[in-house]
Amino acid sequence: MPPEPRVGVEITRVSPSRAEPARDVAAAEEPLEIRVDGAPFVVIMRTPGADRELAAGFLLSERVIASADDLGAIRHCTSESGEGAPNVIDVRLTAQASQRAGGLLAGRRAVTATSACGVCGRRTIEDLMTGIQPLRDAWRIGAGIVARLPQALRAAQTVFDETGGLHAAGLFDVEGRLVASAEDVGRHNAVDKVIGAQLLRERLPLEDVLLFVSSRASYEIVQKALVARVPIVASVSAPTSLAIALAREGGATLLGFVRGETFNIYAGGGRIEV
Amino acid sequence: MPPEPRVGVEITRVSPSRAEPARDVAAAEEPLEIRVDGAPFVVIMRTPGADRELAAGFLLSERVIASADDLGAIRHCTSESGEGAPNVIDVRLTAQASQRAGGLLAGRRAVTATSACGVCGRRTIEDLMTGIQPLRDAWRIGAGIVARLPQALRAAQTVFDETGGLHAAGLFDVEGRLVASAEDVGRHNAVDKVIGAQLLRERLPLEDVLLFVSSRASYEIVQKALVARVPIVASVSAPTSLAIALAREGGATLLGFVRGETFNIYAGGGRIEV
Repeated sequence: MPPEPRVGVEITRVSPSRAEPARDVAAAEEPLEIRVDGAPFVVIMRTPGADRELAAGFLLSERVIASADDLGAIRHCTSESGEGAPNVIDVRLTAQASQRAGGLLAGRRAVTATSACGVCGRRTIEDLMTGIQPLRDAWRIGAGIVARLPQALRAAQTVFDETGGLHAAGLFDVEGRLVASAEDVGRHNAVDKVIGAQLLRERLPLEDVLLFVSSRASYEIVQKALVARVPIVASVSAPTSLAIALAREGGATLLGFVRGETFNIYAGGGRIEV
Repeated sequence: MPPEPRVGVEITRVSPSRAEPARDVAAAEEPLEIRVDGAPFVVIMRTPGADRELAAGFLLSERVIASADDLGAIRHCTSESGEGAPNVIDVRLTAQASQRAGGLLAGRRAVTATSACGVCGRRTIEDLMTGIQPLRDAWRIGAGIVARLPQALRAAQTVFDETGGLHAAGLFDVEGRLVASAEDVGRHNAVDKVIGAQLLRERLPLEDVLLFVSSRASYEIVQKALVARVPIVASVSAPTSLAIALAREGGATLLGFVRGETFNIYAGGGRIEV
């Protein structure tokens, strides 16, 4: 079965006049482990599809290969039980290319067992949840307050208006008041900055605030919120399939497409008063 | 001097009726090396500012620390000549935290000398350009063709309309015809997929196509284009300061805010017929 780049999800659509169940489609996000000559090299989060092309392009960018001449077979792995492993792909190099890339490969191989960029080595929802206790219900927030988040964050986002190139992340209290905000070219960095600031003030766990981001919500945004114990994550744009799955598993509330008085509830609707 | 989150740049603004020099502001993107107890841990691309908070939040997400109690001093490093090193920050852990995080730290320290996620260990424009020959002028493209790129890519982007969560990357020829496209939750993945597909067809170097992305252009997009020898990179949204600097150093053309008949030229304007 070919991999699906999109995943159907059951959601609740909220507008000022109503909240109703609906069916939505989310972009698929899954980890892909790239192996080189059978040895783990890197794990990246990607949308399934064109995995061979992705692996080839990634290895070119990383200068492991210089051209198609350096490549042998590229194929998805098979598990010990003979099943296909659609999230593991092995790239064989020619002997010459393998030798040339030796130092680079040796260095990279040491990486995978731990983690780089927050995901390497962690493959499944279960792995991602390791050491994280699911959140419990604590407080609820009104739908009207959610609807006002974009304007409140935008008001705090001083650089965006000039450059158009920065993501913002904000923490808000139960009344929708801004507690802290940060901006960065990387949305994960903006979240790290705003949570890190609270950490330095010894305010963790952050059980009494919500996190709002000016971007899409990928798995890493939800993961960072869960570690800091933020119960509600809201974003201006779409969540990925893995963000939704992780929020549901972790007992977090995940809101998306928070725009102009409407938003979607992807997980944990019990914390939203509609 | 406090770090600047934005950088002034000289650009050319192109509209159907004219092309004129202008001054623009780009979001700053620079590498930050985070050290733990003096040893290199990771290099991440970020917008300068709130570096202490970023380091603390990142280490929390990575589970190196669990709370502020695990932290000693966090400070920017000083070079051997006594100058400040605003892109290197050292995080001291308490003895207990250091011991607890021992395995994780040992694994990560092996990473830095090589590279993870395409940037670790490479710190400056000079480093990023290592092994990449600057591009030479080859062909020119009309401004009218550039203006039609968004519509052409959107037409090829089948999943976006449903999910709102995928980035697209497309390769176009000198006449503006779509050569190939790919979609992914990660914009860098979309670029790797579209370039990787050409690599597998033995069509590299890609000197006769341009790369158009449905997102912002960060340094990594330009870096991937340079490695594949794509001379022109265009994006729907803003480029970062490092993307602009790398394009200029590499002799690439960088276009941004390609929307509704207008766009900005950030580098390599000689390839654009206006």
